[in-house]
Amino acid sequence: GRIRVTLYGMHAVCAAIRNPERQIRAIYAVEPDDPALVSALNDALDEGLDRPRPTRVEKDTLHKSVPREAVHQGIGCDATPLEDIYLSDVLLKIEAKGRGVIVMLDQVTDPHNIGAILRSAAAFGADAVVVQSRNAPEINALIAKTACGGAEIVPMVTETNLARAIETMQKSGFFALALDERGRGTLADAPDYDKTLLVMGAEGPGLRALIREKCDILVRLPTESAFSSLNVSNAAAISLYGIAIKSKKK
Amino acid sequence: GRIRVTLYGMHAVCAAIRNPERQIRAIYAVEPDDPALVSALNDALDEGLDRPRPTRVEKDTLHKSVPREAVHQGIGCDATPLEDIYLSDVLLKIEAKGRGVIVMLDQVTDPHNIGAILRSAAAFGADAVVVQSRNAPEINALIAKTACGGAEIVPMVTETNLARAIETMQKSGFFALALDERGRGTLADAPDYDKTLLVMGAEGPGLRALIREKCDILVRLPTESAFSSLNVSNAAAISLYGIAIKSKKK
Repeated sequence: GRIRVTLYGMHAVCAAIRNPERQIRAIYAVEPDDPALVSALNDALDEGLDRPRPTRVEKDTLHKSVPREAVHQGIGCDATPLEDIYLSDVLLKIEAKGRGVIVMLDQVTDPHNIGAILRSAAAFGADAVVVQSRNAPEINALIAKTACGGAEIVPMVTETNLARAIETMQKSGFFALALDERGRGTLADAPDYDKTLLVMGAEGPGLRALIREKCDILVRLPTESAFSSLNVSNAAAISLYGIAIKSKKK
Repeated sequence: GRIRVTLYGMHAVCAAIRNPERQIRAIYAVEPDDPALVSALNDALDEGLDRPRPTRVEKDTLHKSVPREAVHQGIGCDATPLEDIYLSDVLLKIEAKGRGVIVMLDQVTDPHNIGAILRSAAAFGADAVVVQSRNAPEINALIAKTACGGAEIVPMVTETNLARAIETMQKSGFFALALDERGRGTLADAPDYDKTLLVMGAEGPGLRALIREKCDILVRLPTESAFSSLNVSNAAAISLYGIAIKSKKK
């Protein structure tokens, strides 16, 4: 029979188990004694979180319970979704600590790319990733799988009007830095700002004009002109690194 | 019926069509008038390359002619494989220009990761990617698809003994920089070398001890300690960027 699996993949499930913001209704594993899973459960119990004992399932049962071609790695769980986080919450948090980095994705819809960007955002301590559309639960599961736990750390904020969201952040002291091949300067030449909004478009079309024009500066990456094409998640990782090393220099 | 498809994906096929090192025996397209394909063919003809007219095929024919789950994007071709490039050839070429960057992958076997790294290597003008094992043709097709044309630009060099290959490069003036979480300094603190060998291990296990010990310096990326995990292709993109901005500063 089918089971209810809302998250799958070893890193994604273990991160959800450790996340106090999640309730976990069931854990399904082909190998319930997997050391990574046992370690996540121990961490959660140490934190006083209520977590069910994993249920042993057949690989085939998991296969049937996740979207076609989902790489479940023999583990899944039924977890409550994360609560919506609003841009205003993120801005308040950043206001309190004085520094922050937010990533905005314009027309980037591929869940593998969004997941990979959440993972890099978590690795470099970014505060949020802003996207335009709310995703279906099965897309969020794929994003969480690709993010390898990053989706538990960096909130994904939905803003239907990205141009207006840029204005809101600018009013809150953010400097909007657009990654665009037409940029005159490179990322390394851009100054360091306490609050940086990194705005990225999809591969190919790039940023829409209405988004690009809202930004304070356009920068490019120092790629070879003969072959400038970078995958959007690699470009995001590089930019987050570039911003991180600037702020460390200060 | 089935057709013989050795490369697929729009960017990969168009880059092969433009590459004078390739002979193309047949081109198969669901849309033979696709502007990207027409433009690649015109470029090749301008260079005097002999290229066949694309044959219109049904999507289903392509589906049946590529590995299961291959994303062919409606285009494929039958191209001769690239000639093997040896490390000595790469070192001679770098000797002549005085500067060079080579990436070495230890135990990184996922074709999506290798392809993504070739793409970033092409974007940042690296000279070669050294791997340990020769891949089967269908794996090379997947690597080429993921590299989006980068596989036509950056040679993939096979060296069965990676430790010895590091020594060979060191004797040729290369500085071997290993990316390793145990590194005391970060990439940004490392000096700029005219000839840099960037050595990377697989996610999880990282570099094997025998490889790590051959390297001249271990550096890490400045990620958050609570969530330091980066995808290997993102880590490679960041490192290639880090090396590129160092050499531009000189």
